[in-house]
Amino acid sequence: MNPLQLSQNRPESGNLIPRNIPPFEECWPSSEKRATTVSFDGLELQVPYRRVHLSNGEHFDLYDTTGPQGFDPKMGLPKLRSDWVSKAPPKSTQMSQARAGVITPEMAFVAAREKVEPEFVRSEIAAGRAVIPANRKHLELEPVILGRNFLTKINSNIGNSATHSSIQEEVEKLQWSVMWGADTVMDLSTGENIHQTREWIIRNSSVPIGTVPIYQALEKVDGDPVKLNLEMFIETLVEQAEQGVDYFTIHAGVLLQHVPMTVDRLTGIVSRGGSIMAKWCLAHHEENFLYTGFEEICKVMKEYDITFSLGDGLRPGSLHDANDGAQFGELKALGELTKIAWEHDVQTMIEGPGHVPLHLVKENMERELQDCFEAPFYTLGPIVTDVAPGYDHITSAIGAANIGWHGTAMLCYVTPKEHLGLPDREDVKQGVIAYRIAAHAADVAKGVPGARDWDDALSRARFEFRWEDQFNLSMDPVTARSYHDQTLPSEGAKVAHFCSMCGPKFCSMKITEEVREAMADKSNEFSKIGGEIYS
Amino acid sequence: MNPLQLSQNRPESGNLIPRNIPPFEECWPSSEKRATTVSFDGLELQVPYRRVHLSNGEHFDLYDTTGPQGFDPKMGLPKLRSDWVSKAPPKSTQMSQARAGVITPEMAFVAAREKVEPEFVRSEIAAGRAVIPANRKHLELEPVILGRNFLTKINSNIGNSATHSSIQEEVEKLQWSVMWGADTVMDLSTGENIHQTREWIIRNSSVPIGTVPIYQALEKVDGDPVKLNLEMFIETLVEQAEQGVDYFTIHAGVLLQHVPMTVDRLTGIVSRGGSIMAKWCLAHHEENFLYTGFEEICKVMKEYDITFSLGDGLRPGSLHDANDGAQFGELKALGELTKIAWEHDVQTMIEGPGHVPLHLVKENMERELQDCFEAPFYTLGPIVTDVAPGYDHITSAIGAANIGWHGTAMLCYVTPKEHLGLPDREDVKQGVIAYRIAAHAADVAKGVPGARDWDDALSRARFEFRWEDQFNLSMDPVTARSYHDQTLPSEGAKVAHFCSMCGPKFCSMKITEEVREAMADKSNEFSKIGGEIYS
Repeated sequence: MNPLQLSQNRPESGNLIPRNIPPFEECWPSSEKRATTVSFDGLELQVPYRRVHLSNGEHFDLYDTTGPQGFDPKMGLPKLRSDWVSKAPPKSTQMSQARAGVITPEMAFVAAREKVEPEFVRSEIAAGRAVIPANRKHLELEPVILGRNFLTKINSNIGNSATHSSIQEEVEKLQWSVMWGADTVMDLSTGENIHQTREWIIRNSSVPIGTVPIYQALEKVDGDPVKLNLEMFIETLVEQAEQGVDYFTIHAGVLLQHVPMTVDRLTGIVSRGGSIMAKWCLAHHEENFLYTGFEEICKVMKEYDITFSLGDGLRPGSLHDANDGAQFGELKALGELTKIAWEHDVQTMIEGPGHVPLHLVKENMERELQDCFEAPFYTLGPIVTDVAPGYDHITSAIGAANIGWHGTAMLCYVTPKEHLGLPDREDVKQGVIAYRIAAHAADVAKGVPGARDWDDALSRARFEFRWEDQFNLSMDPVTARSYHDQTLPSEGAKVAHFCSMCGPKFCSMKITEEVREAMADKSNEFSKIGGEIYS
Repeated sequence: MNPLQLSQNRPESGNLIPRNIPPFEECWPSSEKRATTVSFDGLELQVPYRRVHLSNGEHFDLYDTTGPQGFDPKMGLPKLRSDWVSKAPPKSTQMSQARAGVITPEMAFVAAREKVEPEFVRSEIAAGRAVIPANRKHLELEPVILGRNFLTKINSNIGNSATHSSIQEEVEKLQWSVMWGADTVMDLSTGENIHQTREWIIRNSSVPIGTVPIYQALEKVDGDPVKLNLEMFIETLVEQAEQGVDYFTIHAGVLLQHVPMTVDRLTGIVSRGGSIMAKWCLAHHEENFLYTGFEEICKVMKEYDITFSLGDGLRPGSLHDANDGAQFGELKALGELTKIAWEHDVQTMIEGPGHVPLHLVKENMERELQDCFEAPFYTLGPIVTDVAPGYDHITSAIGAANIGWHGTAMLCYVTPKEHLGLPDREDVKQGVIAYRIAAHAADVAKGVPGARDWDDALSRARFEFRWEDQFNLSMDPVTARSYHDQTLPSEGAKVAHFCSMCGPKFCSMKITEEVREAMADKSNEFSKIGGEIYS
């Protein structure tokens, strides 16, 4: 393995080690990284999970996104998929294989990860209802499936911009994202060193990496959208495809006819990709070259088995603009494109909004299922009120939980810095955790088998005053513990049958224990009363 | 006015000044406290609002809970309602007046505050669909209306416990709560100096204060629930009523027959009041004395015009226990009690859960409307997943926005410290803001006239790159500004037509401006294209 090279105007590679983020053991006390070994077609697939050891001798197992730990970022992660890919037929995709009735190692892997049958995974991919974004060149990947009949996934956005950030920071944001539970990560870099930043990110990523290739294409034409064309766009796709990008956001549904439909909007076009393409269409007075050249793009996608994330360039940027003609017009175009992509056996998902008031959220999911033929939906929030910049991880977690419940496959996080600035590492963590909450709430609501077991395990620990277990089962054990310790710092308080909220006299759970004991004493009497109630 | 006295084991009263929280001007830059004068029946009602001055010479007015500023906490706030109350008929309540066709000053005040007709307010109160919690002894109050046909309100809980906190801290938490938008505040103190803490809080509160009187009653019997009885409970009610408490949480619906229904729960009884009453019922094997003595309690409530908040002592404490027989059994009992309260002209609201998965949230509202005859619903969250202690302001804001949308009148906040410890001032702020988000999202979703104007005003500022206006119109201007300044600190960046997220080349809003200019140039062409699209 050759070490990755940093460009000359970047910090020395040595500066990347030791990394500045706390290791797995510190973030997840009493947790152990483990793997289920799945023998498949001569391969031994190592499917990761996290085991939380409890103080009562029991344990609880959780889905794990944290990836291999302790590797030197200069060398990248181990190439788990080398053998899988080398055995795969050339130019096949997960979709072509699924349609041919073949279960791939990636399908077997995600089946074990999701605790479902491989055949079910295959059938969902064949139907286009789920995707496994897995570029044949991204060998470090632990595959993940996105589809509404699986666990709801979340995406974290990272990437530097013209004004800020370094490669080292971005690699750490990647590591930090997966530490807290990001299922995929998008590198949205727009500044210098786009290519190299991406190389570092992919080589150190066990999760699928997505990009928006038009950003790099635009850099190549000095930032002038008018100079873009299909040829250089495809050249950019190939460059990124060779690095191993797993899914591409492509704004091929922004059509010339949609542009005038944005005139009466309060906030016009807020997607960068959407505005770039709108400007191109307008300047040339021609149809979007990503639309007219879509079949050529499909060929590149198929070659590497890259998944389409068809961008919603006309997503609403304010409640005022939600669910309007421009947005839903584009959605219909994305449905047309989905059919074309599927003809090429290219896996496809559909991007969604954005800013949507709560009562209009469900319609987005319903229209997407209908107009895009049940392709997986991948939404940004949605934010349900515009008035809380600084807290948009919360405004959007509300919308995300709702749209996830209705069937969105992946929720793109929003951080507290949305609308204000670039997220730093702490913002990334806050965004990921808010979205883990939304996704899990959605999974419970949509009835994913076993999803509520986690809630039950934590609530049982809470009710039994197993404080350490309550912390360790939570989405952020260190924070939970520190909040507890602010008022009751002693070790004794962590086995106490009360807490600082009520103190010993008022503890409802303590009284409930006593009530239960009293009821056990009076069991005959109560079975009589119970009989009367229920009869 | 006599200064309030601090007990001897408390810090000197001088320590309370200067207060430790930032003043209005710092929290709300470019905002001005103003009042609309309403002439009513010989009174001049001063109805407060907050005016945000914008950089383009316009302004935007918002509902304001912050109360009179700059008063010495030792002296308390001005007694705005002295004349109103002295002119009111004795032993009347808002409900008895409404039923007699009388519009009270309180009704006229909230009508101006909500921008509706006084007659509509009267009719909603007469029907029991709304309440104005306003003890005749709470003269510092700026009245507020709670009902599903009005703006969704939020409550903040404060109060010391046996293990922590001081009077000074609690008064500051009150001031801090209303600064950020709490519509009512509950004093849940359980530790020492309950009476005195409450006195300080009420005398310094422009918002309705609620309490759970059983907490103080329990202190009087050395913490042994078995020793409680109706006589001393009513004595406690009168003590608190005389101080001016506006609403009482009373757990009169926890019936003997419900107790065995909690046996199969994962987390038993988690309401303090509920567990206290369950223990009492069980020990005496008698019906809950708050239920059997309910008519006597009604007499005290009527005397002072205190509003019932009928407590949900059997609310679920985990997703597992949501919407079960115990919870809905109690809800039916609360409906019975509502009818009795209304016979006494006592205003009544109903408390609700708690922990509820997203798909079961709506049923709570539907059942409450049916079983409690449309009395206003007042819920705690609900939390939609149990697995994120440390982030329960977020888990619960998701549930709160949803149940608010479906018609809950008031949302009781949950802070990041829920399940872990007592909230400090920063937690109070985080909880209040998360709930302001939930309540406003609910108002937009349920279509409160004018609610979305706020979103539109902020989005317009955002789109026009009026950064200062975007900050000043937000729920927390100082935080929004500081997040922006972390990446682009210069003053020039606040008039720049781009930001740190994308930098100047990629700014979608900047490109949209260019697109609109281009479209204006080609207006003829586009009206033709538009015509084709829309035809």
